[in-house]
Amino acid sequence: MSGRFQHAALVGKYQAEGIRPLLEDIAHVLVRQGLEVSIERQTALNTGITEFESLDAEGIGRRCDLAVVVGGDGTMLGIARELARHDVPLVGINQGRLGFITDVPLNQWREALGPLLAGDYEEDPRAMLEGAVWRDGERIFEGLSLNDVVVSRGALASMIEIRVDIDDEFVANIRADGLVLSSPTGSTAYSLSAGGPILHPRIGGWILVPIASHTMSNRPIVLPDSAEIRMTVVAGRDASANFDMQGLASLLHGDQVRVQRSAHKVRFLHPRGWSYYATLRRKLRWYEGVV
Amino acid sequence: MSGRFQHAALVGKYQAEGIRPLLEDIAHVLVRQGLEVSIERQTALNTGITEFESLDAEGIGRRCDLAVVVGGDGTMLGIARELARHDVPLVGINQGRLGFITDVPLNQWREALGPLLAGDYEEDPRAMLEGAVWRDGERIFEGLSLNDVVVSRGALASMIEIRVDIDDEFVANIRADGLVLSSPTGSTAYSLSAGGPILHPRIGGWILVPIASHTMSNRPIVLPDSAEIRMTVVAGRDASANFDMQGLASLLHGDQVRVQRSAHKVRFLHPRGWSYYATLRRKLRWYEGVV
Amino acid sequence: MSGRFQHAALVGKYQAEGIRPLLEDIAHVLVRQGLEVSIERQTALNTGITEFESLDAEGIGRRCDLAVVVGGDGTMLGIARELARHDVPLVGINQGRLGFITDVPLNQWREALGPLLAGDYEEDPRAMLEGAVWRDGERIFEGLSLNDVVVSRGALASMIEIRVDIDDEFVANIRADGLVLSSPTGSTAYSLSAGGPILHPRIGGWILVPIASHTMSNRPIVLPDSAEIRMTVVAGRDASANFDMQGLASLLHGDQVRVQRSAHKVRFLHPRGWSYYATLRRKLRWYEGVV
Amino acid sequence: MSGRFQHAALVGKYQAEGIRPLLEDIAHVLVRQGLEVSIERQTALNTGITEFESLDAEGIGRRCDLAVVVGGDGTMLGIARELARHDVPLVGINQGRLGFITDVPLNQWREALGPLLAGDYEEDPRAMLEGAVWRDGERIFEGLSLNDVVVSRGALASMIEIRVDIDDEFVANIRADGLVLSSPTGSTAYSLSAGGPILHPRIGGWILVPIASHTMSNRPIVLPDSAEIRMTVVAGRDASANFDMQGLASLLHGDQVRVQRSAHKVRFLHPRGWSYYATLRRKLRWYEGVV
Repeated sequence: MSGRFQHAALVGKYQAEGIRPLLEDIAHVLVRQGLEVSIERQTALNTGITEFESLDAEGIGRRCDLAVVVGGDGTMLGIARELARHDVPLVGINQGRLGFITDVPLNQWREALGPLLAGDYEEDPRAMLEGAVWRDGERIFEGLSLNDVVVSRGALASMIEIRVDIDDEFVANIRADGLVLSSPTGSTAYSLSAGGPILHPRIGGWILVPIASHTMSNRPIVLPDSAEIRMTVVAGRDASANFDMQGLASLLHGDQVRVQRSAHKVRFLHPRGWSYYATLRRKLRWYEGVV
Repeated sequence: MSGRFQHAALVGKYQAEGIRPLLEDIAHVLVRQGLEVSIERQTALNTGITEFESLDAEGIGRRCDLAVVVGGDGTMLGIARELARHDVPLVGINQGRLGFITDVPLNQWREALGPLLAGDYEEDPRAMLEGAVWRDGERIFEGLSLNDVVVSRGALASMIEIRVDIDDEFVANIRADGLVLSSPTGSTAYSLSAGGPILHPRIGGWILVPIASHTMSNRPIVLPDSAEIRMTVVAGRDASANFDMQGLASLLHGDQVRVQRSAHKVRFLHPRGWSYYATLRRKLRWYEGVV
Repeated sequence: MSGRFQHAALVGKYQAEGIRPLLEDIAHVLVRQGLEVSIERQTALNTGITEFESLDAEGIGRRCDLAVVVGGDGTMLGIARELARHDVPLVGINQGRLGFITDVPLNQWREALGPLLAGDYEEDPRAMLEGAVWRDGERIFEGLSLNDVVVSRGALASMIEIRVDIDDEFVANIRADGLVLSSPTGSTAYSLSAGGPILHPRIGGWILVPIASHTMSNRPIVLPDSAEIRMTVVAGRDASANFDMQGLASLLHGDQVRVQRSAHKVRFLHPRGWSYYATLRRKLRWYEGVV
Repeated sequence: MSGRFQHAALVGKYQAEGIRPLLEDIAHVLVRQGLEVSIERQTALNTGITEFESLDAEGIGRRCDLAVVVGGDGTMLGIARELARHDVPLVGINQGRLGFITDVPLNQWREALGPLLAGDYEEDPRAMLEGAVWRDGERIFEGLSLNDVVVSRGALASMIEIRVDIDDEFVANIRADGLVLSSPTGSTAYSLSAGGPILHPRIGGWILVPIASHTMSNRPIVLPDSAEIRMTVVAGRDASANFDMQGLASLLHGDQVRVQRSAHKVRFLHPRGWSYYATLRRKLRWYEGVV
């Protein structure tokens, strides 16, 4: 029987060498289902698997039509960003506690992969934030985020002041430890710690939420993701801008972080029956508290 | 010069009789601009204005292509709901402190109406919540909200428990004083008091936020407005369901409030240059705190 | 061997008839330890136990030096308030999920009671709120709370406005669904739902926290418990005042709820090794979340 | 007439040279009231005032019985900490927007100082946090705080994990951007930004509140100030501990910050009629919001 997918890439958690037999098992199942199989290059190096061709992200993007990821949400976020421009869907198998997006349990991967390879899955597209840091009219850093863009004060500064504009309209001057601009995917990550709401993945918006705001009249806002959002450093020493934790430190006053929705989406595949709300309840104990 | 609109209805704040000369002034300006003018029936009764034909909401909806409202946000919300099915745009003139949606100051109405009647305005469409209370398979109440649908405990009950489902998928069981399902327009009203985020009017979503949640692991969520949301009373005495403060008391266990996005939108018109964010800063002192 | 206590009263959860054999077991153990044993009157009626003298709260207060309570926090709170004036210490045995204050597990009561009767326990005194509702210079209601005093809006009102004064000094005018004045004991109850902090029982203060505040610049405050706090109804229909859920409805504008620290304290006894913080972690999953 | 105070020290805001004539005016008024007057050494250097003897904090502490401070809350906090061991009361005159503790307006200092020097004032004692950082059994840093002790993650770390114990009892393991332990005085500063409650200065407790907690089931707690609180760095890179913004970076895992109530209190003097609550309303717009 010919499945829906032709060529799968296998990706394993960085420095998780013990997963070699597991990856090999999965690879063989995929082969038996008639798929061509490649191994992500770094995974191949870490595990020593040489039976399958190894490909870098660029190669996976060009040649594969599915990525099977073994690891946690961190592994998934990393490879998802790398594959973002190529429209390769991803499915995540989790060795430990299930994640928000890696939701096939290790002991059920065989049962889960079968129907999924046959085309029976739920597709869950996720918007990404794309942006750059501008200084004196020049782009000095570019970034892509599945979770969030964070602008924050330096370790020794008492606060940062950030001016926010959206499509040339002034929004607010925010004095805080930092400012999080989060996608729906990031709404259950750092944005949640800062006090942001949960955004369903189908909402076309970003959360703007301060960290430890110096004004009491702050409140998170959900902004349309169709606009360009500009965050300009007005005050505060040694600020930094981070796209999914990767970024640029030592921002100067006047530096501007400009963010818009990426033209690309990450496509997560879930086994039929997957529930976003069940994941919230399981991971966050959302409304499951005992008092 | 012939303006963009043909026939305006004038609506005045309920029981604000002193506004008669103001309404007459506005009416005469509209007439001089070539518009036909009618007076909303209740406004005509309250003010004694007989110079212009009076129309009820149904009549306004059928015959007018603009409603000019003099009053506060409450007046605006009321008539907007009544006209919702008819697609009549509204502009609000505020006698007192400017509202979120009644944003033409009393002393600037002449300057503001001119360009607006000539077609130079910003249109600001707002989604509405439409729903019903179901008991034993029958609709026992129907409602339409521009702000929110609130299900809350009776005065003597200690809490209410509500099961939330969305498109037949279980979301959560929530024990609280009540539950607010708010539109973007309602996000700066009761939902904000309950701890909800601000939703920009262009966000296609509703906020679900509990009032005084009995679990600590609660957090507001923004749900897609394309789904049907069902709130079922599971426990708690004498609960009530309210659509924009109008509703049904004495809900029984098993009663279900079903809500979806209305096919109609309210269309507010603002003078060119109006800013949603400026309104937030002015009305909420959002990020304008002094500490 | 003569223990530290002379005469114990046994109190059982209201309408929990199945606890008769348990109460009898406990009674016999107490007798064997040399204590005189009485049964709280309502408990005797509910269970049909006639082997021991039954006493009402007044009688327990006069003659007993220990109350052994079988039930949940609700049972404990109820009898604690009744015994408040008499300085009788209480120990709580919980049939189900352990409570904040009923912390001897059912299957460990024998091991727990032994050392406790011998004087080896941790005493945990709790302050109470005592107050009255005043109208036109007259007390029209008196109350005593171990948890909280709550002033809240009627079911049909949109909000209540309450003026708060402390020792004749103006504190604030608060517009909200209601206002909670909570003891440290109540800080893990309704006050927590309203957004209040946790107060350690040794803190000499009350939490003042609004429910669904209509102003964004609200924030809970901890007030000294040495002061008299006055909450005056300024606006809002059909408000009510409740002392631990028991209260007076249909408050009028001008009605004043005056609260001060009771001269009496409730004395809970815990087995040696009891930990307040462990109780928080267990009951609230405080800082135990999984994300 | 002999006033209540004998010898006042004048302290001016650091690098506010323009205040020389103001300080001289105040000095002369004090002299005319029969007080001996000295100038804080750094203030003397900054202003060039040589007419009065200059004293360092140690000298002021030994010889003066009043400190008159001209500046903002920052100036006041700085000198208050320096004088803490000496029990010298302080009064604050504010050139700009009144602070929480510098509450004599510039244009009223003459009227305010008169009665105050005559002994007619409100004394407002404030508890301080005193502590040290311990590594491998040795004190490697000591600090004193009027506001707070903050332990926080390094700029490049994603979070810090801190174990909190109180008098050898385990409280919680907290994963967050940082942890604030705040006095009542600090409750309106950084602790408020992190989501802490307001603590009246007479409350004998500290607030423990996380910054951007990684668990949803966090909640600020007010701990007794009679206990020793220990915060141990369990995880996270390059953490720092700060006592009123002064501190030690590059903490190692196992480093412990131990904090207890200082034996000394800062004594602020306010003009008769001063109101703590009025200050909250004015500074924080507490419950003064407009919506």
